Amino acid sequence: MTASASFFEQARQRIQSTGNILCVGIDPDLGKMPEGFSADARGMADFCRELIALTSSVAAAYKVNTAFFEQLGRSGWEALAEVAAAVPGGIPVICDAKRGDIGNTSLAYAKGLLRELPFGAITVAPYMGRDSVEPFLSIPGAAVFLLALTSNAGSADFQRLRLHDGSTLWQRVIEESGRWAAEDALGYVAGATDAAELAAVRQSVPGRWLLIPGVGAQGGNAADVLRANGSGPALVNVSRGISYPTLLPGESWEDGVARSALSFASELPGAL
Amino acid sequence: MTASASFFEQARQRIQSTGNILCVGIDPDLGKMPEGFSADARGMADFCRELIALTSSVAAAYKVNTAFFEQLGRSGWEALAEVAAAVPGGIPVICDAKRGDIGNTSLAYAKGLLRELPFGAITVAPYMGRDSVEPFLSIPGAAVFLLALTSNAGSADFQRLRLHDGSTLWQRVIEESGRWAAEDALGYVAGATDAAELAAVRQSVPGRWLLIPGVGAQGGNAADVLRANGSGPALVNVSRGISYPTLLPGESWEDGVARSALSFASELPGAL
Repeated sequence: MTASASFFEQARQRIQSTGNILCVGIDPDLGKMPEGFSADARGMADFCRELIALTSSVAAAYKVNTAFFEQLGRSGWEALAEVAAAVPGGIPVICDAKRGDIGNTSLAYAKGLLRELPFGAITVAPYMGRDSVEPFLSIPGAAVFLLALTSNAGSADFQRLRLHDGSTLWQRVIEESGRWAAEDALGYVAGATDAAELAAVRQSVPGRWLLIPGVGAQGGNAADVLRANGSGPALVNVSRGISYPTLLPGESWEDGVARSALSFASELPGAL
Repeated sequence: MTASASFFEQARQRIQSTGNILCVGIDPDLGKMPEGFSADARGMADFCRELIALTSSVAAAYKVNTAFFEQLGRSGWEALAEVAAAVPGGIPVICDAKRGDIGNTSLAYAKGLLRELPFGAITVAPYMGRDSVEPFLSIPGAAVFLLALTSNAGSADFQRLRLHDGSTLWQRVIEESGRWAAEDALGYVAGATDAAELAAVRQSVPGRWLLIPGVGAQGGNAADVLRANGSGPALVNVSRGISYPTLLPGESWEDGVARSALSFASELPGAL
């Protein structure tokens, strides 16, 4: 992230220059390494750097999930730093870490992921409330995407619970957290798998940034997402649909990645 | 963790042999390093190893918070591995990571923290629901402490919300997650700062393990916690009250740590 532009400013500029709102998700799965990459931290770093090189001409942003690196311990953490540094300047990078702890502890996570590592934004879990989220907001220029309505089946267990006043938990999370930070620092994760719900999220926060996962392998459809999101600021994440594309006959992994990224980018036009 | 005993079995044995339910929290703060330790990853690892050496004769368990290590990037992750390995065999160690993500991603966290690193249990955030928690439960012998009612001010924002049926969110988290795993694999984090609420948690799950933070610096009182918990299986965590003790005149940090650990252990007797 440049010192002068906040994460969301940088994202806005990048969307203008690419003409799309595609966020390329980096979720390296050791069990699915293409030919030529070893199933270890070295191979993982090489795979991710290649994925970035193949997509950086079209990607409006990247999202890197920390879990796949953490599972390899120290060497994985080394690979994470290498991958974060491999994204060309000017392209915003989200750390998908879903952290959240009491104040001084969240601040340590914030320092580690938004300062030691060059991520410009982070995903944060809301369960522990305001003082677990604010430390991330204290990093100048950084942005938080708070989990609101996720794209997995388990989102029904708690996020959709009906409260005493008739609203749902995810609606309350959005309403309450809206008081914690302005639109230029706090956005939401809202899954793409149910377009009607995504539209409801957008309606409740017309000006907030949304990070929308679930398009591609998880079943969400780009056209439905665009309709549901309307003209609000958003990044739509595609992970497996780009990094592990269904290859055409005779196609290399490299060509498949480049083709898929271009295809998703063209399905996700955007100018803010 | 030994191959033969599950985390909770190991905890039970250790409580029998120490006669207390004190969990020593390892939350190394670079801004509060005692004399003789450098304010970097090397100093942090040395500090934690010394803390373990000074308390391992009385500690029923340890809880290591990943945030303080993550903030130092790669070298911090190296220190975390060193610290986890420094706990003597037979003493259960909880990884306080508060992770939680969609299935394959949670599994990567589980592998990293419960297999690559020798932690026997992990704290997990419930917001994303069942399929975000189950991967942690799939590691044989490992235990999950699911966040139910935490000890920070922000716990009021969502955890205490009243649902349409009159119950609170934390009660629903406990009720719902009780179907996901048996008592020998899934327990709860329940803060010590409000004894009446802790008693309510205990009443709702008489046989589940509770990890109870908040005694000492956060204001919880050992006697109140013991009364509220009754005879249920529990570990009571003290972090700053032991690692950063208020020193007596002329007392060294080492002596203060040993004295504080002994004192908290004697205030937290337990035999299950």
